Amino acid sequence: MNGQINKLIFKNLGIHTQNEHHVYMREDCHVCISEGFEALTRIRIFNGEKSIVANLNVIRSEILQPGEISLSISAVTALEVKEGTTISVSHLHPMSSLSHVRSKIYGNTLSSKEMKEIITDIVHGDYSNVFLSAFITACAGKGMEINEIISLTEAMIATGQRIRWGSGIIVDKHCIGGLPGNRTTPIVVSIVTAFGLIMPKTSSRAITSPAGTADTMEVMTKVNLSMEEIIKVVGKEGGCIVWGEIAKLSPADDILIKVEKALDIDSEGQLIASVLSKKVAAGSNHVIIDIPVGETAKLRSTDAANELKIAMEKVGDAIGLKLKVIITDGSQPVGRGIGPALEARDILAVLRNESHAPQDLKERALLLAGEILELSDSVQTGDGINMSRDLLESGKAYRKFMAICKAQGGFSEPELARYQHEIKAERAGSVTKVDNRKLAKIAKLAGAPENKTSGIDFLTPIGTMVEKGQTLYVIHAESEGELNYTLEYYNSQKNILTIQ
Amino acid sequence: MNGQINKLIFKNLGIHTQNEHHVYMREDCHVCISEGFEALTRIRIFNGEKSIVANLNVIRSEILQPGEISLSISAVTALEVKEGTTISVSHLHPMSSLSHVRSKIYGNTLSSKEMKEIITDIVHGDYSNVFLSAFITACAGKGMEINEIISLTEAMIATGQRIRWGSGIIVDKHCIGGLPGNRTTPIVVSIVTAFGLIMPKTSSRAITSPAGTADTMEVMTKVNLSMEEIIKVVGKEGGCIVWGEIAKLSPADDILIKVEKALDIDSEGQLIASVLSKKVAAGSNHVIIDIPVGETAKLRSTDAANELKIAMEKVGDAIGLKLKVIITDGSQPVGRGIGPALEARDILAVLRNESHAPQDLKERALLLAGEILELSDSVQTGDGINMSRDLLESGKAYRKFMAICKAQGGFSEPELARYQHEIKAERAGSVTKVDNRKLAKIAKLAGAPENKTSGIDFLTPIGTMVEKGQTLYVIHAESEGELNYTLEYYNSQKNILTIQ
Repeated sequence: MNGQINKLIFKNLGIHTQNEHHVYMREDCHVCISEGFEALTRIRIFNGEKSIVANLNVIRSEILQPGEISLSISAVTALEVKEGTTISVSHLHPMSSLSHVRSKIYGNTLSSKEMKEIITDIVHGDYSNVFLSAFITACAGKGMEINEIISLTEAMIATGQRIRWGSGIIVDKHCIGGLPGNRTTPIVVSIVTAFGLIMPKTSSRAITSPAGTADTMEVMTKVNLSMEEIIKVVGKEGGCIVWGEIAKLSPADDILIKVEKALDIDSEGQLIASVLSKKVAAGSNHVIIDIPVGETAKLRSTDAANELKIAMEKVGDAIGLKLKVIITDGSQPVGRGIGPALEARDILAVLRNESHAPQDLKERALLLAGEILELSDSVQTGDGINMSRDLLESGKAYRKFMAICKAQGGFSEPELARYQHEIKAERAGSVTKVDNRKLAKIAKLAGAPENKTSGIDFLTPIGTMVEKGQTLYVIHAESEGELNYTLEYYNSQKNILTIQ
Repeated sequence: MNGQINKLIFKNLGIHTQNEHHVYMREDCHVCISEGFEALTRIRIFNGEKSIVANLNVIRSEILQPGEISLSISAVTALEVKEGTTISVSHLHPMSSLSHVRSKIYGNTLSSKEMKEIITDIVHGDYSNVFLSAFITACAGKGMEINEIISLTEAMIATGQRIRWGSGIIVDKHCIGGLPGNRTTPIVVSIVTAFGLIMPKTSSRAITSPAGTADTMEVMTKVNLSMEEIIKVVGKEGGCIVWGEIAKLSPADDILIKVEKALDIDSEGQLIASVLSKKVAAGSNHVIIDIPVGETAKLRSTDAANELKIAMEKVGDAIGLKLKVIITDGSQPVGRGIGPALEARDILAVLRNESHAPQDLKERALLLAGEILELSDSVQTGDGINMSRDLLESGKAYRKFMAICKAQGGFSEPELARYQHEIKAERAGSVTKVDNRKLAKIAKLAGAPENKTSGIDFLTPIGTMVEKGQTLYVIHAESEGELNYTLEYYNSQKNILTIQ
């Protein structure tokens, strides 16, 4: 191929297409014609030594002049290209990892080497969303064998950065989602680091839920810290609560999660690899995993939770993690707030020992913190929860939390959304059942987690006796459009709460 | 939602993104802000009564002015919108069919109703490529049960147009691809219609191969006929050879095929539904299916071919088609040309009874035409092939072919590509094996089927004794870039032909 003929001048059109790289070229461009490119061809773009792969969008207008080329914002960033720079393009050489994806689609088992090739190409940005979706779908549900999950976890670790904290116990925790609210992590980190253990917590943003720990913490402090900043915070306070993506701990997972979110699916293998690769990348070696079980939680039966527990323990063993998996009640939200700012408010109420603080959130956090303390040699089995209670009720955990926020970049109080709408009981009786998924959906439609203050305040947990007309929960939203849209969904649903 | 606030003026930016609809809105647009839209959100766009769903691309430049909105070319066409028109946008209501796709991903069996909902939404253009890819992947390989394949076939028929030719036998044929060249259809249609049967043949373009019958026929005549034109041609000549997509016979299949092509995968269920839905939609009731079997054909073993045969016969029964499935030799290409124009040249040589015409292509066409004649009451079993030979060798089939081309819009002779490159034998010996897949890949890299004249002329079938330096095949290409790229691939491969 003649390099000269494929050169074009970059012009920024400012088109944002999220993670998938797109390139824009005129239909009558000499390169399109001589190379035989057409719309949605995948082509490789070079800026000096750097190269990326992008989907071609063909331009039939004057927004580009002859000899010009443009890139989507993600591609501009990845290629580090500036207005007026000359860049070149070429055909995409066949990627052998795509044949591994096809093999997986047809039901074959992937080797460790094949999995590594797939993940390496994904991290390099070479997969279109169509291929990411196919890979995720082929691995979804029970689509992966335990050895494939181990390979995927190892490949995710190998393709990301990894923090090393020196020798000694580094603790971590993770909750296998599906339960709205339940924002125990900031409380647990505060207790455990107040005790003196090292807990460098990296959390994800929401995948299919109204909030992830990173979304909630972002209401109160900065979470997108550089690796250097994380090390500094942990060095000073013994812990942190930051966003994992920015630290590039598992870039493969961050790419896959965006497409999983679009599809609104989870897969057991991806889930295990995602969770455990981030633990190892963050440098932890002792980890508590919390699996809530309930009719409308992610795990619906104790059997399914036990299967997941066994698979996680096998992968943990293979990659050298000491894991303790505990199974908890997932029949309803934990805490009152669902959505970043509302959950942040609950966390602060617990840490500040306010009288109206949600007791279920407090007790869940104490249970988990207790289990973590017991992973250390200095706390005997059974003593953990009481030691945790002392650290929380004495205010030590709150002071530690504020110190961590300060170290991460300063503390802000959560704010309230512009619009509130109360949902009232249509009859009197006792609340007997809560549909976690529908509540989560309402919180998402109201704007969570994109709008921090959006979500739900859930006031009547299972067992509450309610009067007709009593407020069951309050929808918070930042725009009328979203509030109306949420109410439209609410009106189309039955049995969000069951009252008998 | 306030309809007024969501109105924007359409400006055409001329961005072509193939089948997936995209919408472009400024990041600071009041609608983006008030509705909480962000990049890659799926939103609904209205132009009067018409509406479509599109992926949002957020614009951070001046290519759109405040209050303006743009759409990709496919979306402009679907929405029938003109420059300066006021259009409105809204949130996408949750599509229940997406939960059926998720159910399929998790390994559940879809009901007929669920399949119908999925296909209806796909035909409406409401699926992003991410969801199309997930649906295709979940159905790939052996992912579908026979009842699901029946449902899929019925749904594809129900969502497309359907031609009715009145009572009587309407014949058709289909070859389950995987074999380069093998362009028997135009010859078969000519013979069968010269005999007097009705054969309204709609063909697809290439999915993963260097040419489909529609691509090849387009070299010689017009194939994108309207339904009215097809009916006129068949009324006059008893047959046609046209492109199925234009006739909207199975719009669902046409959308799915684009993503299957990107993924380069086939699935048994999609394959059966694709083939049989188009047969029914085209109004045929008696159909011959040809399944070539060979090490590097689509079907690699007689067992696999038999399984497919049984599944096809079950679906045929369910939808009221009389099917005869025959299994043929697929060890090497049939005919010499691989690629639209080169295949067209072979077809004409056979129809014109030229002395150098490829005999294997002629005999394969006679076999299939014979089987079709025997589906009619007037031809006894065993007589079909000889009657076909008479029709071909007498020139009646050729005159019929030219009449059909004339009726479809006129006949053109195939042309030759700008560049030829001969691939020579590196040793003397006998050709013992041909890798169909690698030959097909070379033809595709050379530009087929997008460039009509690109492809391969394959000169040395299995059994040929070759000298060192003798030409094995000739690569045809329209650009140096593609030729060089093809040779790069050729040099990286072994055993395209095996000489012993």
